[in-house]
Amino acid sequence: MPLTDPDRLFPADPATRDMARALYEGVKDLPIISPHGHCDPRWFAENARFPNPAELFVVPDHYVFRMLVSQGVPMPALGVPRVDGGETERDPRTIWRLFAEHYHLFRATPSGMWLDHSFEHVFGLDEKLSAKTADAYYDHIDACLAQDEFRPRALFERFNIEALATTEGALDDLQWHRMIRESGWQGRVITTYRPDAVVDPEFEGFAANIEQLGALTGENTVTWEGYLNAHRARRAYFKGFGATASDHGHPTARTEDLPQDEARMLFQKALAGLCSPAEADAFRGQMLTEMARMSLEDGLTLQIHAGARRNHSAQVFAQHGRDKGFDIPGRTDWVGALKPMLDAVGLEPGLRVILFTLDETVYSRELAPMAGAYPCLTLGPPWWFFDSHEGIIRFREATTETCGFYNTAGFNDDTRAFCSIPARHDVARRSDCTYLATLVATGRLSMEDAAEVAIDLTCNLARKAYRL
Amino acid sequence: MPLTDPDRLFPADPATRDMARALYEGVKDLPIISPHGHCDPRWFAENARFPNPAELFVVPDHYVFRMLVSQGVPMPALGVPRVDGGETERDPRTIWRLFAEHYHLFRATPSGMWLDHSFEHVFGLDEKLSAKTADAYYDHIDACLAQDEFRPRALFERFNIEALATTEGALDDLQWHRMIRESGWQGRVITTYRPDAVVDPEFEGFAANIEQLGALTGENTVTWEGYLNAHRARRAYFKGFGATASDHGHPTARTEDLPQDEARMLFQKALAGLCSPAEADAFRGQMLTEMARMSLEDGLTLQIHAGARRNHSAQVFAQHGRDKGFDIPGRTDWVGALKPMLDAVGLEPGLRVILFTLDETVYSRELAPMAGAYPCLTLGPPWWFFDSHEGIIRFREATTETCGFYNTAGFNDDTRAFCSIPARHDVARRSDCTYLATLVATGRLSMEDAAEVAIDLTCNLARKAYRL
Amino acid sequence: MPLTDPDRLFPADPATRDMARALYEGVKDLPIISPHGHCDPRWFAENARFPNPAELFVVPDHYVFRMLVSQGVPMPALGVPRVDGGETERDPRTIWRLFAEHYHLFRATPSGMWLDHSFEHVFGLDEKLSAKTADAYYDHIDACLAQDEFRPRALFERFNIEALATTEGALDDLQWHRMIRESGWQGRVITTYRPDAVVDPEFEGFAANIEQLGALTGENTVTWEGYLNAHRARRAYFKGFGATASDHGHPTARTEDLPQDEARMLFQKALAGLCSPAEADAFRGQMLTEMARMSLEDGLTLQIHAGARRNHSAQVFAQHGRDKGFDIPGRTDWVGALKPMLDAVGLEPGLRVILFTLDETVYSRELAPMAGAYPCLTLGPPWWFFDSHEGIIRFREATTETCGFYNTAGFNDDTRAFCSIPARHDVARRSDCTYLATLVATGRLSMEDAAEVAIDLTCNLARKAYRL
Repeated sequence: MPLTDPDRLFPADPATRDMARALYEGVKDLPIISPHGHCDPRWFAENARFPNPAELFVVPDHYVFRMLVSQGVPMPALGVPRVDGGETERDPRTIWRLFAEHYHLFRATPSGMWLDHSFEHVFGLDEKLSAKTADAYYDHIDACLAQDEFRPRALFERFNIEALATTEGALDDLQWHRMIRESGWQGRVITTYRPDAVVDPEFEGFAANIEQLGALTGENTVTWEGYLNAHRARRAYFKGFGATASDHGHPTARTEDLPQDEARMLFQKALAGLCSPAEADAFRGQMLTEMARMSLEDGLTLQIHAGARRNHSAQVFAQHGRDKGFDIPGRTDWVGALKPMLDAVGLEPGLRVILFTLDETVYSRELAPMAGAYPCLTLGPPWWFFDSHEGIIRFREATTETCGFYNTAGFNDDTRAFCSIPARHDVARRSDCTYLATLVATGRLSMEDAAEVAIDLTCNLARKAYRL
Repeated sequence: MPLTDPDRLFPADPATRDMARALYEGVKDLPIISPHGHCDPRWFAENARFPNPAELFVVPDHYVFRMLVSQGVPMPALGVPRVDGGETERDPRTIWRLFAEHYHLFRATPSGMWLDHSFEHVFGLDEKLSAKTADAYYDHIDACLAQDEFRPRALFERFNIEALATTEGALDDLQWHRMIRESGWQGRVITTYRPDAVVDPEFEGFAANIEQLGALTGENTVTWEGYLNAHRARRAYFKGFGATASDHGHPTARTEDLPQDEARMLFQKALAGLCSPAEADAFRGQMLTEMARMSLEDGLTLQIHAGARRNHSAQVFAQHGRDKGFDIPGRTDWVGALKPMLDAVGLEPGLRVILFTLDETVYSRELAPMAGAYPCLTLGPPWWFFDSHEGIIRFREATTETCGFYNTAGFNDDTRAFCSIPARHDVARRSDCTYLATLVATGRLSMEDAAEVAIDLTCNLARKAYRL
Repeated sequence: MPLTDPDRLFPADPATRDMARALYEGVKDLPIISPHGHCDPRWFAENARFPNPAELFVVPDHYVFRMLVSQGVPMPALGVPRVDGGETERDPRTIWRLFAEHYHLFRATPSGMWLDHSFEHVFGLDEKLSAKTADAYYDHIDACLAQDEFRPRALFERFNIEALATTEGALDDLQWHRMIRESGWQGRVITTYRPDAVVDPEFEGFAANIEQLGALTGENTVTWEGYLNAHRARRAYFKGFGATASDHGHPTARTEDLPQDEARMLFQKALAGLCSPAEADAFRGQMLTEMARMSLEDGLTLQIHAGARRNHSAQVFAQHGRDKGFDIPGRTDWVGALKPMLDAVGLEPGLRVILFTLDETVYSRELAPMAGAYPCLTLGPPWWFFDSHEGIIRFREATTETCGFYNTAGFNDDTRAFCSIPARHDVARRSDCTYLATLVATGRLSMEDAAEVAIDLTCNLARKAYRL
């Protein structure tokens, strides 16, 4: 018996299910376009084997280990590194067994579905993971990883990836991207410009980062103009490694369009470490508008990921650092927050801004009405916790009636878990086909149009939004 | 093949679909009651032919043209007039072709369904609109419009409209309503009292408007008492032209019940143009309570449409003015905002207040709990972006369990697109029948009760809420 | 014909319905665990007969009478007592008839389903309640109530209740619980520690309540330390009568972790009646953290019910007092509000905190992400207005993908309407089985796992969350 149902995520009603299956047949083998994510470019540069099952599936994936933590498993027992370098579990098999014993926690979660999909479709397993099968799983996956066809480039090709964007900080030298390019390998792995560390006055080491930005670019980054020019230079450098987009992860969606004098003064305050939290927020907001202006110059698509309250637990942050499953969404205002940027550049031809939210209430109330009016705005797919079957259905139901399909940007897997990429795109394709089939079954769309839309959602909208 | 599926919007499950179809049979031919909307009374007064397809379907309908604008079509190319009188496209056929080329943008949107319904059921078309069929469409519709049976009064009768309320500003002389009455035509077209221009201190020309209000009524509107009496006089005048309701479009739902001395001083500040934004909001809030008190005197139903952030794009507003598809909803608090008014008059017998929101999160959290307790409160149907199949289903699912059916007000089409009226009421009837059929199929309502409720939702609740 | 459909609340699709029915067969006869509610312990202590149908079903149930009030029925006509002792209807049969005449208002509401379930399954009625059947209903129920098998203890046993928690204020002497225990009756009725009156500086008579708290415990409650010790003493006293949990009903979810010096000063201000509303909120927030610390000592589970704007109508509160159907939910922030408490004790092993919200938007945005990370947090079931079929489905759909099943706490009936307890648990079991069947039908869960989860949701998760 397979781990994954061949008809999974299709509607229960038999006639509608048949329609969904037919639509899915038309898209299931299309190439994967992954225009935003967090894979490590080093994998493709070095093409070394993945070390072991625990380090592939558990230790680096905060989606996974936070669920065990929520049921009382201590983070160190899962091998999650400590900031102070203190003791954590080192035996991957022990970690794997602990994971396997708790696998029932993932029932009916997207993580569970992605994992089962990877186990079955990447590694050929067909029995459920449990305490009983833990060792057999471990041995089987570990043996696979030792084979050349399980190295990163081979998997990349097997996954039929047309393009994969990684995300690097503004100060990154892109050495792995350079190494990929110089290797002659044909896989299209591109970077994305993510300048949070030099845009957010509250980022650790902000002033030093700005200094480094100056050193890298030869610009005098203690002046506002030099600082902006340094961004221009780095954006160009990133474009040289394939970047077609920048990405901005801010706690709010605030934008500003201050007079340049005020922006200049605010920058000086930020450099001096004197910004209040409100001023820091204003500076980040100003920089979104500046980045939008640069996008008009260089054509990079601007992505805004707003609304995560990062590192919610002070203790987890102190002991284990960032990205440990304790980032919690919060209410996010978009309609007021984006107005300054939109008044500045919102009607400019050619500008592309993609919006990602963790507050689902804004889909129908704020994002779809804005995307259905402003030419520059496109809705990114459901993000993070909402990158799931129900999340995707809710997104389509809440947005399509107001902004249609053509103001949305296709799918992003947004993952650092390489093996889950095919699984995630498969969930998105199935969920979109289910939504489309429901429209057909209820007389809201013809089957012919639905088939065309399915292909657009799978490939064309992402290509267009990211200029890929 | 028809443009619209005869079973559209019914549930996919065959047995439930049969129930929905049976319920719909019981309501589909009932008369249309349209107690709130924005049709132009002049149409029915003059009964002139509609000029051409573009001016019927595209140019005046911001639902429609904003979707093309969102994909980069400039507003002037769609013939949308400019504030400065500058150049815009004047050839209706050119506009129509541009619209037809972009018709795929409306896939699975309510606009698309309303348009197809009008094309098929009003104009007898049966091929899909596209670049290829654009000219044939244009010619056919234009030829229809030249015939007497496509003039406004003939369509009004063919649409089986029992009553149609338009909306006029407090300073309107209601000449078209007078002309309708004097014409002897029997169609029931009534007005609605919409005093935003003389109630909102931030409205363009507020002080001059108040002066004109005084001139119209013979009241001394520079005093608070004279100002209130002038409202009484205008309400009576509007009642003389059939009005059974007033309507108030405010950015927030705020109400106030200030001591009369404070209200008087605030009014003077407003007249002098000295109100801060917060004071302007307070004054609008005070006026809602004053209007509720007047409703106790004269029996007009009070409608509150709150939460639109009007004219979100400063540039679009400057170039094209109001109502151009750039009104964006925002978060709206109702539970705190209505308390002052409810404490003042919320338990008074006979008062009817209908609430309309653009923030769907308040359905279950605020509006249904309040409507399920306060005798004066009734929930208006889903408004604007939410006047759609999914919007109606979400509304019923979120409110019925808490306040039942009998604290809701039936359907409003709220449109300025005359030909879409039958389409919109048809969508509402189908969606309500789908909701009711689902309740029957899942043992939550008997078929007999559902049939009765379907008729109530279609006609009786609107008649009762608006005293029609 | 039965009043309730045997397949009610199961999915419409036949195959999915069969799965739901099969899952329900596995849980329908399991014992009822009611770990949070508002039954009167006196019923079980005295075991007297319930007085009459109106006082059983209408007068004390604000779910029921507020619906009639919302349609213009005056509260006194329904026998709801007045604060001033003024005239209200006294004839239970007159009240019952008024209720019966308005019974159509409850169509498709949970109250309607609970009432029908009680009428049929507790009292054996099979014709619909209406004006016509009102007297027959009254006579039949009244005759039943005269029989021994309809006394509280007999019903408790017939309902198959394994444990029932009531809720008593911190100053309650628990005399009825003592009487139950001394009676030798084996029914497990336990208390819950609800200290709002001695924790909320805005509670009527706060200072006097604190004084009484001192008198009851022998602690010097005018000092912060004595006050905390008095809580410890009362918690121990309540544990002596079976309590396994405390419960806290606050307007917001705010928590604080002030330095003890500041907390001490705030307490003095509260005692002196000098707290501003913000300070009162801070004090309540501090006390949640203090209670969490005491939970670490004594093992009581901490329940937080946040977000009700109590007594929304000043007039209803003045005339009829608390709990009269005019408590309205409001927007509630959880992610910021809980941070101080979570930073203080959120990772402590053994702590159990159960969260209840009236703002459904926080399910997916705040509560599930936090419960899927913090080991101490568990999500309580949908509360109050959302304790309904759609409410339960929305809860599962919004939370399961992010925090799974095992960070939720099973079902609470949270009722003061004793006869509705089996009905409410039945709705929860059916709705959960419907949700699970949908997962199975769409390939997201195996039938075997679903059957196990169904039992966990019905019994095991409540037992674990409340240590029952």
